[in-house]
Amino acid sequence: MAPQITTRSSVEVATTPVLSNDIETVDLIEANIVASGANKKTVRVVNGLGSLMGSKEITQLDDSITAKVQPSTTTSGEKLHISEQPWTLNNWHQHINWLNMVLTVFIPAIGFYFALSGKVPVRKNVVLFALFYYVASGITITAGYHRLWSHRAFEARWPLRLFFAILGAANVQGSIKWWGHSHRIHHRYTDTPRDPYDARRGLWYSHMGWMLMKPNPKYKARADISDLNDDWIVRFQHRHYIPIMILTAFVFPTWVVGKYISPGDYMAGFIYAGILRVFAIQQATFCINSLAHFLGDQPFDDKRTPRDNWITALVTFGEGYHNFHHEFPTDYRNAIKWYQYDPTKLFIYATSILGLALNLKTFDANVIQQGIVQQQEKKVNKMKNKLHWGPTLDELPVWDKKEFVEQAQLNKNLVVISGIIHDISNYIPEHPGGESLIKQALGKDATRAFQGGVYRHSTAAQNVLSELRVAVLKENGNAAMNFVKRRGEQFDKNKFE
Amino acid sequence: MAPQITTRSSVEVATTPVLSNDIETVDLIEANIVASGANKKTVRVVNGLGSLMGSKEITQLDDSITAKVQPSTTTSGEKLHISEQPWTLNNWHQHINWLNMVLTVFIPAIGFYFALSGKVPVRKNVVLFALFYYVASGITITAGYHRLWSHRAFEARWPLRLFFAILGAANVQGSIKWWGHSHRIHHRYTDTPRDPYDARRGLWYSHMGWMLMKPNPKYKARADISDLNDDWIVRFQHRHYIPIMILTAFVFPTWVVGKYISPGDYMAGFIYAGILRVFAIQQATFCINSLAHFLGDQPFDDKRTPRDNWITALVTFGEGYHNFHHEFPTDYRNAIKWYQYDPTKLFIYATSILGLALNLKTFDANVIQQGIVQQQEKKVNKMKNKLHWGPTLDELPVWDKKEFVEQAQLNKNLVVISGIIHDISNYIPEHPGGESLIKQALGKDATRAFQGGVYRHSTAAQNVLSELRVAVLKENGNAAMNFVKRRGEQFDKNKFE
Ligand code: HEM
Ligand code: HEM
Ligand SMILES: [Fe+2]
Ligand SMILES: [Fe+2]
Ligand SMILES: [Fe+2]
Ligand SMILES: [Fe+2]
Repeated sequence: MAPQITTRSSVEVATTPVLSNDIETVDLIEANIVASGANKKTVRVVNGLGSLMGSKEITQLDDSITAKVQPSTTTSGEKLHISEQPWTLNNWHQHINWLNMVLTVFIPAIGFYFALSGKVPVRKNVVLFALFYYVASGITITAGYHRLWSHRAFEARWPLRLFFAILGAANVQGSIKWWGHSHRIHHRYTDTPRDPYDARRGLWYSHMGWMLMKPNPKYKARADISDLNDDWIVRFQHRHYIPIMILTAFVFPTWVVGKYISPGDYMAGFIYAGILRVFAIQQATFCINSLAHFLGDQPFDDKRTPRDNWITALVTFGEGYHNFHHEFPTDYRNAIKWYQYDPTKLFIYATSILGLALNLKTFDANVIQQGIVQQQEKKVNKMKNKLHWGPTLDELPVWDKKEFVEQAQLNKNLVVISGIIHDISNYIPEHPGGESLIKQALGKDATRAFQGGVYRHSTAAQNVLSELRVAVLKENGNAAMNFVKRRGEQFDKNKFE
Repeated sequence: MAPQITTRSSVEVATTPVLSNDIETVDLIEANIVASGANKKTVRVVNGLGSLMGSKEITQLDDSITAKVQPSTTTSGEKLHISEQPWTLNNWHQHINWLNMVLTVFIPAIGFYFALSGKVPVRKNVVLFALFYYVASGITITAGYHRLWSHRAFEARWPLRLFFAILGAANVQGSIKWWGHSHRIHHRYTDTPRDPYDARRGLWYSHMGWMLMKPNPKYKARADISDLNDDWIVRFQHRHYIPIMILTAFVFPTWVVGKYISPGDYMAGFIYAGILRVFAIQQATFCINSLAHFLGDQPFDDKRTPRDNWITALVTFGEGYHNFHHEFPTDYRNAIKWYQYDPTKLFIYATSILGLALNLKTFDANVIQQGIVQQQEKKVNKMKNKLHWGPTLDELPVWDKKEFVEQAQLNKNLVVISGIIHDISNYIPEHPGGESLIKQALGKDATRAFQGGVYRHSTAAQNVLSELRVAVLKENGNAAMNFVKRRGEQFDKNKFE
């Protein structure tokens, strides 16, 4: 099964519009084909097992990719796909993706059985090696599979790429090619039916459900991964994925432990540095699709589910700052604050100093700050809308002086401050400055006394005031407008013109 | 020296304006006289030492109180007040308030001498008693002197008031009457020359400088404390302040320690539970005038210096939330969040359950939240103004379709999105979605592709876009207006009408 490599054909795009007085619109069908990479001759690089942990149903392309998703129908005679049928005693086994079940559930279960039953006792050095190998292999997913290949956040020279590709297989998460492909689909279709780990379907679905069950082929999607196919290391790893995976995930740690770490202890190497380490890395990675879409803050945008949280970051070498990551996917960092935990970023930075990585991409700091400010503004506005702020200038009736004097005969508790008339009946006993002082103002214009002549009242006092408003004084309309303007209130200036 | 008590005469205020068509203005002179309490017959309650730690110069009232503060002048023949003269070798001793110097510096110095020289060794039980007595006497300042008497934040029955008055003297901070008076002046004149501890004159001045130096009588002020004079406990304490102070501050702790805590150890009682405890409480209290106006956040308003910080709160039983306190002085709480340290609040609450305190005042929660929101809004706006946001709709030239098609001949990198024309020349290589996709849009209208037809771009992408704006498309003016409106941008809608 030799791969058929074709060189990447650059897209031919019409950049010169025909001179007419109308503007051409981007052709959505064509653009979607470009986005899916279907305009390029597909590089067929296959391996024996198909796409490990991926299901053909969600990665194969046909023409329907650009069509709108149709609700499934039972009226047509066609047989429904298994994912659209209810689970029954007869068909449950057809719902399940047994390969993934074996790789992510059964094998780890065997590992746990040997570990917990005490059949394979473990020595401290073996645990230490398993941890070390956890870090060494795990970083190839976050720095390599994810930030380098899925997002082109930086470029890497071949020795580093080879390291990522070889040790990357030790995580049993599929080849770079498959992983990058479904990850790009996830970014493009986040929170839609085409998102492979659609967080809207619940925590469990986005954690493992999506890979343990057969997906609906109706929602299959494809992404352009021609740049990955252009990389001989990616092709090499994909083609020889099974042997590389078996060697690096299981054989190598078993051998190292039995030979050097704890001589003769091959079984401990296999269980702890092999099976259980793989289980830990898989679960940590799955957390990015589940927890990081459920738990934490959204400091950059809240249009979609991704969230920043340090718990996921801890077990994934910094990938838990997922709200940032979905907003700024090509940034080689996931965390930008010094106190946030993102060792993958530091690792990439270190390799760049060694000359192994280059062109580390960061998003424009201005754009990043804009996201933060907009989110905070939203929060403030939400809080603002929960409070009551008294009537606006536009909502108030307008009285002239004569009317005020008449009204003041009926209600002795009217006070004019900055052109606005207030009824302070209920506030007199509450006044922090005392009753006798506030009573000085009854029926009068207390602007100067209130604004500094006796006491320069706080913003809080101005807020109290705004809830006591009953009318605007016609002759002092300008004062009223200036006052509410300084308070940042909106109003229609035509009212007093 | 028998006190001349007069009953409180309620203020006569003109509440019925004469019927005319003009509105009377609050008479500032009159209102200031009411604010200073000068309209009431003064209760003369005197004690031998005058106002301990207060200087007559800042508390005596004359007619100048309502006059504007004049800059001092050397042209007039009058002799300048000592506070306006430079410090020289000849006059330095006249600058100093020696009574306060003795009470807050010399006596503590003697205490430290005995403690540090090892002449008065201390046993654990004595330290524990000194701490206990620190808490018992300290709480009378925060709950009694401050929140009850200075701010009327609640009412207290006589046994509790008596406890506050008697143990309050043990802090050597002057009588309730004097303390409440200068504290009310501080609130009314915060950050002005009449503020006794004017924070604008520096940390040291507001901590102790103000009481160790003679103040300028030009800035003397008075506050209405007729309600304090109405309280027989306040009068009693003021009249007998000196003996009560000597008994509670020094004699009592000396006796308790020597008799019960560490038999025979009278000297340790005097030094540790007397002198050094007083020193600690004084310093803690002074921190509210100094640190609490310098260190910390301003979550409620930033018009004035007071700040919230937990360090001051720790040593003052919760008085460190000073930004809140200056905004909402009659609230019996200084901290409103459960995780903030305000044991004085809890103490008051506990006494209210015992029936010793009643009518605990709190500020309207809506008004408190308004302050928080307004402060956050200010912060957000400050951040917003630091960023660049691209040209607004009003700043852009308007092109019609014909013009666009012509311009697109000259610059191939123009793209229309939502009625706005962008020049994406520099962004093509940066595009996270890849170069080939963004190139699909050159010279075209990419609105649908950008807004979901191919990919539903994030808010971050919209922000990037706004910096690439070059013109508005006349025919799509409405789309452009809707778009920037959704983004919360301001614009003049007349432009396209
Ligand atoms: C008419 C509506 C009024 C409202 C809603 C109001 C509200 C307030 C509030 C909330 C405070 C607490 C401190 C602060 O927020 O800065 C305060 C303090 C004070 N008010 Fe007013 N006030 C009113 C009228 C007046 C008038 C007419 C006078 C004087 C003639 C006056 C004199 C004072 C003084 C002297 C204080 C300082 C009290 C202290 O902190 O010791 N107020 N007022
Ligand atoms: C013209 C100005 C454009 C700007 C400023 C822009 C900006 C961006 C940005 C910032 C992202 C990162 C993800 C996000 O923020 O949501 C992104 C992703 C993307 N863009 Fe654009 N874009 C533009 C035009 C286009 C056009 C015309 C297309 C399609 C024809 C397109 C297709 C995509 C796709 C498919 C992604 C997803 C990539 C991924 O996350 O895997 N973009 N774009
Ligand atoms: Fe995600
Ligand atoms: Fe990603
Ligand atoms: Fe203060
Ligand atoms: Fe206060």
